[in-house]
Amino acid sequence: MKYPESLRKLINVFKLLPGIGEKSGERLAFSILDFEEEQTRDFIDALQRTKSEISSCEICGALSENGKCMICDDKSRSSDILCVVESSKNIYALEKARSYNYKYHVLGGLISPIDGKSPENLRIDSLIKRIESEKVKEIILALKPGIEGETTALYILKLLKNKNIVVSKIAYGIPIGAEIEFLDSLTIENAIENRNIIS
Amino acid sequence: MKYPESLRKLINVFKLLPGIGEKSGERLAFSILDFEEEQTRDFIDALQRTKSEISSCEICGALSENGKCMICDDKSRSSDILCVVESSKNIYALEKARSYNYKYHVLGGLISPIDGKSPENLRIDSLIKRIESEKVKEIILALKPGIEGETTALYILKLLKNKNIVVSKIAYGIPIGAEIEFLDSLTIENAIENRNIIS
Repeated sequence: MKYPESLRKLINVFKLLPGIGEKSGERLAFSILDFEEEQTRDFIDALQRTKSEISSCEICGALSENGKCMICDDKSRSSDILCVVESSKNIYALEKARSYNYKYHVLGGLISPIDGKSPENLRIDSLIKRIESEKVKEIILALKPGIEGETTALYILKLLKNKNIVVSKIAYGIPIGAEIEFLDSLTIENAIENRNIIS
Repeated sequence: MKYPESLRKLINVFKLLPGIGEKSGERLAFSILDFEEEQTRDFIDALQRTKSEISSCEICGALSENGKCMICDDKSRSSDILCVVESSKNIYALEKARSYNYKYHVLGGLISPIDGKSPENLRIDSLIKRIESEKVKEIILALKPGIEGETTALYILKLLKNKNIVVSKIAYGIPIGAEIEFLDSLTIENAIENRNIIS
């Protein structure tokens, strides 16, 4: 027996979301059938407003509601240091940990030939321009560990060679609370390589 | 740093869906930011159509697009046997396994005092009326194993006492492909109690 056409369509739309397959798509779509009218209206309204009100900050590429994001608009923040991230999502996690005085730059992805992501598809050009125009003294590469992150870091490093700027990378190592025996070898290798002398 | 207001609202709406917490809500909402305009329109359209076009079948309570569901509308199906299920979702799984000639009756839940679900909140009255008016010969209780399913089954059984009708229950036992050592004791107990003599 087939699902009613509109329900089938709703399942298919849910399946476009990350981590949602046929089974979870069915579960989510069926739960919409039990939604109150007001909840459905809220859902539709939130979808519409998210798409129409949120754009990319014209300076750093983060989420913005009026051309410039909150951080680029913040007079108390300095451009001495730029923290370079893959996506605007990362900024929220970084700021949740602790709010520093620096600004951000969102690349909009990492270099990945397999996924057809070349440097031209990323906001690397605008990073280089910002470093010059805003007289940036240091960039912190806060990219996720792995081949794509490393490739992107090396590419940026090459572009900045001979320029008078400090390039740093966030520490890769053992996360707090982790059981060492359950961690992958690459993480452990990184933790050993990047060990800090404490005495 | 706070999320833009519309994104925050979208995360909250996603969190109303089953199995979606703060983290997955954030993940889903951020993925909407990358949706094409057409995909967002499809999403909104599917939500609206699902809510406006799908209602409950006036006879059995299953999903229906025009008052009567496909199965109640199917002249080749007989009312000799009614298969009683908790929710309309169950019908799709049962029909996927194999399509029988019988019809269904959706209770819309199971008796559960803790969740405030009493027999009056369920479609039990209409089941009893259907049994009389459609001259049903057997009902198959296809309810999920557990206290709520058992309570509901016993309640229906009591109402049908002294009526000339066969009441059966789907077999509870070991699912195909399962490793016996990983199954819970209640399933194993059921499988032993309901054993079939084969020789």
